[in-house]
Amino acid sequence: MKNFQLPLHKSEIPTPALLIDFDLFNQNLAEMARFFKDRSAKLRPHFKTHKCPIIAKKQVEAGAIGITCAKLGEAEVLVEAGITSILIANQIVDPLKIRRLAELAPETELIVAVDNPHNIAMLSAMAVEAGSLIYILVEVDVGLHRCGVQPGQAALDLARYIRTQPGLEFAGVLGYEGHTVFVLDAEERKKQADQAMLELTSTAQLIRQAGIPVRIVSSGGTGTYNFSGVYPGVTEIEAGSYVFMDTKYRAQNLPFQCALTLLSTVISVPSPEKAILDTGMKAITIENGLPEVVSPGGVHLEKLHEEHGIVSVDPALIQLKIGDRVEMIPSHICTTVNLHDHYYVMEGEWVKEIWPISARGKFQ
Amino acid sequence: MKNFQLPLHKSEIPTPALLIDFDLFNQNLAEMARFFKDRSAKLRPHFKTHKCPIIAKKQVEAGAIGITCAKLGEAEVLVEAGITSILIANQIVDPLKIRRLAELAPETELIVAVDNPHNIAMLSAMAVEAGSLIYILVEVDVGLHRCGVQPGQAALDLARYIRTQPGLEFAGVLGYEGHTVFVLDAEERKKQADQAMLELTSTAQLIRQAGIPVRIVSSGGTGTYNFSGVYPGVTEIEAGSYVFMDTKYRAQNLPFQCALTLLSTVISVPSPEKAILDTGMKAITIENGLPEVVSPGGVHLEKLHEEHGIVSVDPALIQLKIGDRVEMIPSHICTTVNLHDHYYVMEGEWVKEIWPISARGKFQ
Repeated sequence: MKNFQLPLHKSEIPTPALLIDFDLFNQNLAEMARFFKDRSAKLRPHFKTHKCPIIAKKQVEAGAIGITCAKLGEAEVLVEAGITSILIANQIVDPLKIRRLAELAPETELIVAVDNPHNIAMLSAMAVEAGSLIYILVEVDVGLHRCGVQPGQAALDLARYIRTQPGLEFAGVLGYEGHTVFVLDAEERKKQADQAMLELTSTAQLIRQAGIPVRIVSSGGTGTYNFSGVYPGVTEIEAGSYVFMDTKYRAQNLPFQCALTLLSTVISVPSPEKAILDTGMKAITIENGLPEVVSPGGVHLEKLHEEHGIVSVDPALIQLKIGDRVEMIPSHICTTVNLHDHYYVMEGEWVKEIWPISARGKFQ
Repeated sequence: MKNFQLPLHKSEIPTPALLIDFDLFNQNLAEMARFFKDRSAKLRPHFKTHKCPIIAKKQVEAGAIGITCAKLGEAEVLVEAGITSILIANQIVDPLKIRRLAELAPETELIVAVDNPHNIAMLSAMAVEAGSLIYILVEVDVGLHRCGVQPGQAALDLARYIRTQPGLEFAGVLGYEGHTVFVLDAEERKKQADQAMLELTSTAQLIRQAGIPVRIVSSGGTGTYNFSGVYPGVTEIEAGSYVFMDTKYRAQNLPFQCALTLLSTVISVPSPEKAILDTGMKAITIENGLPEVVSPGGVHLEKLHEEHGIVSVDPALIQLKIGDRVEMIPSHICTTVNLHDHYYVMEGEWVKEIWPISARGKFQ
């Protein structure tokens, strides 16, 4: 970020650039905080969406009990930012990574998921060596069929084993209903999410019946926060995308606004019906479909190359010229953010602040 | 990159990680250098593939006459690395970017593509203000239908106009036959590339006939370097992917090896037939299809989530356990490299060097 003096006008932003609409972003934060204010379940929002410590701190200020993340490298960024309770909702199995994890732990409440006894033994050994305490959640496969042990006895067996291992404290269970969060019909989505939460909370209950306290029952995405977040026995929700939203989540009519856009510039106008943008797949992702142009009207994204976007133009509505700006909503916010180093935080036509995406690429 | 002391064993590399096979990489460099050694056309390889100044310097040492790049931010990295002749094969139209370009120019031979007279006037004004000279190529649409003017008179008109503008020097024409580079059948690919080069070189000839010297006729990708690179009148080839290759280019039986792999770690083994990797779409891209597992045998990538990879395992061939490494070849090298900050340069099982991907994300 060289030569930037704020305030910076929108027309001066170098593109491609990610813009946060500060008002809409704050509305999203407030709406989610309002939902969880008087509930027994609390919000521990997912860092993988925004990867920005400034936003993580705002989420905690708004009532979140801590932050969820996907990777050790992200947890390191969060610790450095002063977040005091961090859940890595994933397995850390590499010996050198476990060492980094154990050495991080004294500085914060660090919670990690497991689904394998060998992994538990390694975590214990390194925690003892580092003189630290690592909090452990048993990951349960509630239907996503990714990581996790089966609900019920397998999870109880791991919980018991964790309790025999020094340096570790069994803290509860985690089960992500990721197979349900994009079910379009809300009723069907609730039905599937409830089934997943039944399996997760029954497992927690089985462990409690064995005399083992279960402090944390963690689940939930932006598509299911209002189902899993009110399911009896669930204590934490990991939703992330609600801060920004994208065209895929927008289709669900959730009470959140699309607060993040990609600003691009027209670099070539081969004909009145066609223009070329300076934005390709290296700046915005397409695995959930093409992004959607929101401004100006009459412009439609047809294709993304590696470094270019190709738009069709309705000449009856708009005449594009080189240098014009085209703004679009990503179809997948998390992978798009992962391509950028900064957010330009907008109040109207002005950049209010520039926020670093400090954990971009911190997947190791 | 904290706490790394070389040599580092492959088992100590934190994953996901990009590995360069140093021998294969050098073979690719040598093969391309050999091809261009005694030809009138020369190589100006594309930086967008590897985004690494160390590799750019090795390409120049191997005979490249300079480097091609896609973005001003990449050119700035190349100037800082000491590359003395840089082609930005793209339009720079934003006034603040043109200022950055003009201020870079005194330090190097900086060449940029144009397809619009207004853009030319702005480039001229800023070059005069900065006291610099910018070299200009007229981009010609040779069939890709992206940027560029039509072959023939339109290009001559722009060349004439450039010659009236102070601070600019008309240097030639550029036409990328990107619509042909992935045609699988080599004969058909050559036919289409030849047609594109006919249009480009005829345009150069038309400009020369008007008394205007044409020093540069630039084109070519990894799929067409051996066709366009021998086409009479073409002076420069912009191929980039040859340094690393990927599964899409491998299908063309070119004399280059897949020299770059993605190393991942097994973090969960739900069954003998299935394992979960620590690598998802944030570390390797899928727009050209799923990556291909090359090691160990008996493992097949089924799906990439955002942070996870899901592989099927043939239990008759291999039993995976947590911590095991799985190595794969990307399907699209350029967008995959754009997700990473470092290359681990391998000699056998050892990391010889770690090379920064300095221009990752430099799309502004």
